[in-house]
Amino acid sequence: MGLESIQFCGSPCGEIVQKTFVHPELAADEVAVKVTHSGLCGTDLHFATTDMVLGHEAIGIVHSIGSDVSAVKVGDRVGWGYPNWTCGKCEWCLRGEDNYCPNWRIYGLADLEQGGLSSMSVRKEQWLFKIPECMSSEDAAPLMCGGSTVWTPLVNHVKPYHRVGIVGIGGLGHLAIQFAAKMGVEVVVFSATESKRGEALQLGAKEFYLTQNIDDYSALGNTKQIDRLIICTSAKLNLGLFYPILNPQAMIFPLTASDGELTVPYFATVRNGLHISGSVIATRFMQKKALEFAARNGVHVIVERFPMTLDGVQAAMARLRDGKMRYRAVLSWNNNE
Amino acid sequence: MGLESIQFCGSPCGEIVQKTFVHPELAADEVAVKVTHSGLCGTDLHFATTDMVLGHEAIGIVHSIGSDVSAVKVGDRVGWGYPNWTCGKCEWCLRGEDNYCPNWRIYGLADLEQGGLSSMSVRKEQWLFKIPECMSSEDAAPLMCGGSTVWTPLVNHVKPYHRVGIVGIGGLGHLAIQFAAKMGVEVVVFSATESKRGEALQLGAKEFYLTQNIDDYSALGNTKQIDRLIICTSAKLNLGLFYPILNPQAMIFPLTASDGELTVPYFATVRNGLHISGSVIATRFMQKKALEFAARNGVHVIVERFPMTLDGVQAAMARLRDGKMRYRAVLSWNNNE
Repeated sequence: MGLESIQFCGSPCGEIVQKTFVHPELAADEVAVKVTHSGLCGTDLHFATTDMVLGHEAIGIVHSIGSDVSAVKVGDRVGWGYPNWTCGKCEWCLRGEDNYCPNWRIYGLADLEQGGLSSMSVRKEQWLFKIPECMSSEDAAPLMCGGSTVWTPLVNHVKPYHRVGIVGIGGLGHLAIQFAAKMGVEVVVFSATESKRGEALQLGAKEFYLTQNIDDYSALGNTKQIDRLIICTSAKLNLGLFYPILNPQAMIFPLTASDGELTVPYFATVRNGLHISGSVIATRFMQKKALEFAARNGVHVIVERFPMTLDGVQAAMARLRDGKMRYRAVLSWNNNE
Repeated sequence: MGLESIQFCGSPCGEIVQKTFVHPELAADEVAVKVTHSGLCGTDLHFATTDMVLGHEAIGIVHSIGSDVSAVKVGDRVGWGYPNWTCGKCEWCLRGEDNYCPNWRIYGLADLEQGGLSSMSVRKEQWLFKIPECMSSEDAAPLMCGGSTVWTPLVNHVKPYHRVGIVGIGGLGHLAIQFAAKMGVEVVVFSATESKRGEALQLGAKEFYLTQNIDDYSALGNTKQIDRLIICTSAKLNLGLFYPILNPQAMIFPLTASDGELTVPYFATVRNGLHISGSVIATRFMQKKALEFAARNGVHVIVERFPMTLDGVQAAMARLRDGKMRYRAVLSWNNNE
């Protein structure tokens, strides 16, 4: 007697299809979650041509639990991002850096029938997170991947006296501005879109610079240089343009998953002690802290709402693909009437 | 009544010329040093076409001091690298990161008549370092630039359980192997030259991998991956070749000054949380610690000796330019007979 789920899936031709799936019995460490909300992330576009349930920024209510589950109970509101399970035995898990577990089971590579764009999902207990009571599920969903992606470099590498540059205002950028501003640092936004200026400042940026058609960034900003540069745009940037406005030992974090090569000026990188640093989502510990921080300080996601229907999923995917989302889609079942 | 000095200088046509210079009176914070030894560094080749005294890895005996000097006294054996002065007032000096002082006076940009290939040099007290008693001047000279260059990323970013890759065995690499091995970490050497295998192992490497004509580095080494990769070769490398043998969050330090672009695979850098990190010489504090560490642990420079004569300088420069130096030239006045 399994649990039936409505699911929205990719397909080889890229069309979104609706399916019905019956989950098998829960394993001892599994949790069935009745999904209420699911965010949509750039990664979902990559998997639109894969036969799998899409969505990996999901919030829902615990429906039932396996025999060994103790961290959550029936009725809890929980969320998850793209990891479902890590081994707990490798050196990366031992270090608490489980977001680099080489054995992990993640969205797109494992458990393909357990995405967030569904009515019921069966997840491992391990990577489920309780959502703080005062946080809406719409705010919570995009924090499970987009939010954790910007949170990690900020919480690990930003000091309170830093000047932090955020490049690009979108699903990631508008959260990065808020997280950074609420850490008390000076936030400077670089965007190619003049119409986003007001919103950037409202979200907490102190300065906004339009980069469209500008080849010499040394003209941008005041004489205070940037210590940390968070690249939130998926467009391939000429990172060298930013070099004249970086402090020695600045760190650059390109956060979006792009193919091809990452190219920077050689000598200036060495000479100025710059760091170009990769970073992916958050450890379990840091995901928990991201939710707590966001709840405590009022990080709010700017959301476009879609119903969790085939039409709704298709519309949200198309809008995301066209680069028109302002700034993060959240699909929800309670929005379906 | 100034101090006369014999000097070996670059010239616009690239020929090394010998000059005589009379130093003016010492300023209050200046120290006249009778040079005994001077190393030769790749940077000196860059400045061979500049009308300036070459050499910035010098050791000598304090001859006389300005009225405010208190950190060294006449008769002390001291050394210096390429900085001569930092402002002590900027944020980088306040942080103790004076190797990024934007106002500094350094070799090639200031004090062009005060290089190490000379008989007498007048230096600021600030960036002079006393040489530990048990350390030979031949060992000390190359530590003033080459040694500090490899020491900084190791001392700042290597943990005792790391596996450290050293790429290229030359003036920098043969010191990096020793510093790393004497920190107790597992040292793995990558070199295009089979004949250097024995020496690499003798210097402290645990493993040696020949990279010549190898396109798939995943075949190199055992299953243990590299945590820190120190690039000591001046040849432009395809850094992506190393990616299959790097641990998540590995740091790559390209240490040589090259023009052009630094290119790495985009997605793998982000996905694996890799860091490509610039680094230059050492702070004053760390330069002092490098000398103490090297003295305590017996870091020895493999030296080719040249007399401090016009012929000697020309011969050393030619050999360095041809990539034949094994591994660091030291010119000395007491070698002139």
